[in-house]
Amino acid sequence: MALERFEEQDFLACCGSTKFAKEMVLASPFTSLEEAIAAARNIWFNKVDVNGWLEAFSSHPQIGQSASSAHTSHTAAQWSKGEQSTALATSTGSSLQELSDWNAQYRQKFGFIFIICASGRSTAEILAELKKRYQNRPIVEFEIAAQEQMKVTELRLGKLFSTKTKPASTGKQ
Amino acid sequence: MALERFEEQDFLACCGSTKFAKEMVLASPFTSLEEAIAAARNIWFNKVDVNGWLEAFSSHPQIGQSASSAHTSHTAAQWSKGEQSTALATSTGSSLQELSDWNAQYRQKFGFIFIICASGRSTAEILAELKKRYQNRPIVEFEIAAQEQMKVTELRLGKLFSTKTKPASTGKQ
Repeated sequence: MALERFEEQDFLACCGSTKFAKEMVLASPFTSLEEAIAAARNIWFNKVDVNGWLEAFSSHPQIGQSASSAHTSHTAAQWSKGEQSTALATSTGSSLQELSDWNAQYRQKFGFIFIICASGRSTAEILAELKKRYQNRPIVEFEIAAQEQMKVTELRLGKLFSTKTKPASTGKQ
Repeated sequence: MALERFEEQDFLACCGSTKFAKEMVLASPFTSLEEAIAAARNIWFNKVDVNGWLEAFSSHPQIGQSASSAHTSHTAAQWSKGEQSTALATSTGSSLQELSDWNAQYRQKFGFIFIICASGRSTAEILAELKKRYQNRPIVEFEIAAQEQMKVTELRLGKLFSTKTKPASTGKQ
């Protein structure tokens, strides 16, 4: 299989931590998606510090909202929309309002937005999960959010590999 | 025992998180130091969010240095000096330099300064602890730092109670 070469911007669309994106570039090229995911896990959990986690969280739109207000790339915005497609298809005006209210309450308690790997999840499931996680201690919730971010990152790395295949011979060296 | 009444500024000298200080005022008056410590533990671990933890960490001087550069009160600066008296008495020029170098490396990895309850600890002990903790994952180290901050807070609440006794009858209501 051809070596995959990506830019910092590509990895930033997978996870909004600058440190993460820079370290992924340093760790690349990757011979497979599996190798990229293993590197991503190591970087995210062992090298990115807590400020980097907060930076990545802040690059997401609030769940149930569009990405327009978050500091995010066009690619990340499109992916975010796709990940929330099940939730959007199953939502009603009142469930979206309830989600928005709980999001505000969550942010008030924890100081960052509710992060969940929304792929394939209905609005009701997301809301139930938000209410459950709201009970957690801040440090416990911080680590759960980081694990959810990692799930999102893995899905997006998969999309990156499937949509932007650049053989090493034509890529920048 | 008389009820102890303290101001936000008093609690801020014990722990540099604004949220912590405000919640302590709301939870007071306390009938004993034990009651104040129980309230402080609950507030610090259950109510102060991760941004508040980072705020508290940033109010400390780097270990082995004076408090002049940190955003801290005169009281906190004096207490910090007292807490580091064993370390300072046991330090040499070269050990302080090594501590400073490791502090910089620690901060580079974790994004906040090395927090340790230095009371009664020599420079050699502090340095050994720093080197050991440097190996930790960022999220693990973040929680250890918060536990060390709580030890500092408890010691300082003790000082607050022993030096600033204000009976409720003369305090502001």
